[in-house]
Amino acid sequence: MKSKATFYHAGCAVCVSAEHGLVDALDRGRVLVETVDVGQHRQRIAEAESAGVKTLPALVVDGQVFHINHGADLSALK
Amino acid sequence: MKSKATFYHAGCAVCVSAEHGLVDALDRGRVLVETVDVGQHRQRIAEAESAGVKTLPALVVDGQVFHINHGADLSALK
Repeated sequence: MKSKATFYHAGCAVCVSAEHGLVDALDRGRVLVETVDVGQHRQRIAEAESAGVKTLPALVVDGQVFHINHGADLSALK
Repeated sequence: MKSKATFYHAGCAVCVSAEHGLVDALDRGRVLVETVDVGQHRQRIAEAESAGVKTLPALVVDGQVFHINHGADLSALK
């Protein structure tokens, strides 16, 4: 079964860099990657929060949260 | 040509989690991954520093630094 990864971002420069440098390097044969712009899709903020996301960009892999550098606080988008 | 990624860590729990959750999900067909325990190999600290690494664990992909969560400050190992 594939792993599931969700990349939460806010469209910021730090986020774009993480998407192109890191998320694009994931093995799509093994990992199903979804990218969510929580600035555009505010209804996903609560989901990110309950997954443990505090800052963006963040990548949640099979329930584990990885905060990558620091672009924005999730709370700033609310 | 393959991308080059170096995962700098300090053997801490946050580092181990990032290694298994994130670094293991990279596409080894496209990315050449090296893992460096800077606690064990202190001669690599200067290299990590000049790559821009400030906290561990960190993943440097083709020169771009991604700090992943926060396990330890690189300066604490000096």
